[in-house]
Amino acid sequence: MGERGVIELVTSLQERMKGNPLPFGDDVAAIRLGGGRLGVLKCDMLVEATDVPPGMSLWQASRKAVVSSVSDFAAKGVRPKVILASLGLPKGLGEDEIRQIGSGLNAAAREYGAYIIGGDTNEAECLTIDICLFGVCGEKILVRRDTAKDGDVVAVTGPFGLAPLGLKIIKEGLEAPQELRARALESVYMPKARLVEGVALASRRLLTSSIDSSDGLAWSLYELARASGVGFEIDRLPVDGDVERFALENNIDHVDLTLYGGEEYELVVTLSPRMLGRARGKVSLIPIGRVTGDVGRLTLRVEGKVLDIEPKGYEHLR
Amino acid sequence: MGERGVIELVTSLQERMKGNPLPFGDDVAAIRLGGGRLGVLKCDMLVEATDVPPGMSLWQASRKAVVSSVSDFAAKGVRPKVILASLGLPKGLGEDEIRQIGSGLNAAAREYGAYIIGGDTNEAECLTIDICLFGVCGEKILVRRDTAKDGDVVAVTGPFGLAPLGLKIIKEGLEAPQELRARALESVYMPKARLVEGVALASRRLLTSSIDSSDGLAWSLYELARASGVGFEIDRLPVDGDVERFALENNIDHVDLTLYGGEEYELVVTLSPRMLGRARGKVSLIPIGRVTGDVGRLTLRVEGKVLDIEPKGYEHLR
Repeated sequence: MGERGVIELVTSLQERMKGNPLPFGDDVAAIRLGGGRLGVLKCDMLVEATDVPPGMSLWQASRKAVVSSVSDFAAKGVRPKVILASLGLPKGLGEDEIRQIGSGLNAAAREYGAYIIGGDTNEAECLTIDICLFGVCGEKILVRRDTAKDGDVVAVTGPFGLAPLGLKIIKEGLEAPQELRARALESVYMPKARLVEGVALASRRLLTSSIDSSDGLAWSLYELARASGVGFEIDRLPVDGDVERFALENNIDHVDLTLYGGEEYELVVTLSPRMLGRARGKVSLIPIGRVTGDVGRLTLRVEGKVLDIEPKGYEHLR
Repeated sequence: MGERGVIELVTSLQERMKGNPLPFGDDVAAIRLGGGRLGVLKCDMLVEATDVPPGMSLWQASRKAVVSSVSDFAAKGVRPKVILASLGLPKGLGEDEIRQIGSGLNAAAREYGAYIIGGDTNEAECLTIDICLFGVCGEKILVRRDTAKDGDVVAVTGPFGLAPLGLKIIKEGLEAPQELRARALESVYMPKARLVEGVALASRRLLTSSIDSSDGLAWSLYELARASGVGFEIDRLPVDGDVERFALENNIDHVDLTLYGGEEYELVVTLSPRMLGRARGKVSLIPIGRVTGDVGRLTLRVEGKVLDIEPKGYEHLR
């Protein structure tokens, strides 16, 4: 079974809590705390063998474990307050390596205004870091996945393609000009979560739905489409300009890099067209198309052609 | 570095959150929610290679992952409300195995009145289940580790020795009479968290301190002693009667089984002597000795001799 089949089966076996404010499968889980407030929770496991690319230090890997879970909070517009870190450590790590892990966790937590307040330490065959975030928000603030509306604009918080290009450089030995190479590697080794952007948009109630893009832009659009019962017409490919030029010159498919890459942490959001101006006054936002009522149909218009976007992205256990 | 050295180094690297109601190293972490309420959090990672004994099914392993974290909530007197489960799964698990994991998680959550409301799925070399619990309690209800007082009674919620005997049966092929064997295996494969007992004692504010005993009775006493700055005089070894008889007949050290076993989930609590009667009217509680002002000194009086209790117990990465 692949990751998605596993998730479907495991969630189907869980008895549902009455009045739970969010369904299984949104970026975070939530519980009502009373007084219109939600406790918001997220756990996210980093496993060295699949999630840590070659050349990434233990400090960066530990930081990344925190950043990927913060990215899910960012998509919901919620600030994480406290973090727990469960460590599975291989035998034989020395003091310097443990120090890298501990300070990487602290640095990432502080970067997003949160604190590590607890955790658990275990022995494991390969480095495993499970991060659990907790935060509190007003129930009306939290942006869901299942509320995109026909006619909305779809937009992203930044260009795509750098991290997938970086992974090609790291894993396939692809050569690239120095400056682009540096940017691409930075986006792999030092990813940033769009927390400031997510909170700015959600706190002003400018969005109708939102998701992060760590499994790739195409997959994120499919998840939004499935949860909300809508379709998408994408008419602008949000590819990084340098990546696009480099890809064209080197016969690399830039559409593929942009749509199906993964390991990117931009937010994919929908909003009413009349909110777009206000939103763009607050954060950098690239409109890439619109929401349609054509349920489950996702198309991309490029160079006068209309292509189907495929429901694929990174999947564990495949 | 062993587990305890790792924990010390990693926690020393974390910037402290001001006004955090619990120090690092208590059984749970907590955050103030306002109105005198605490949000209580715990994560606990189960790794197949070290935490799943031979013969334990995936259903039981998944249930155990939840039970061990519930045990920490039990020690604090807090009911878990919701649970997140991060799964690290080896490739190639089939539908039946995933079903066992999913239903084991649900069964354990429901056994303790909680619900699984989210999680994460990943690929890992060996089965890894990180459980994150969340609950809410009044700030004055939560029982700490660092508040045992000279003159208090120390007591446990049940006898020790069954699970360590069970592990000897499973791992060393030790033979035991059928009924004892069944009880010992049950305590390994189907551990129970003392949530009802912990909540009953804490909600009536009967305890001065509390800890669970999953790293062994001796280790738990040392943790309480260290956190509270006290010592313990134990004058009654809380060994299961059948285990004691069997151990004496078979030349097994029953003191060792009782003090240094681990994988047991009784609560170790301290309380004022004048609360003991009331506490025992509510839950089954075995007084085993008293708290002293002799900081860090832990002794056991058996058969007229006074032995030092050693600061040892199960430790990962050793």
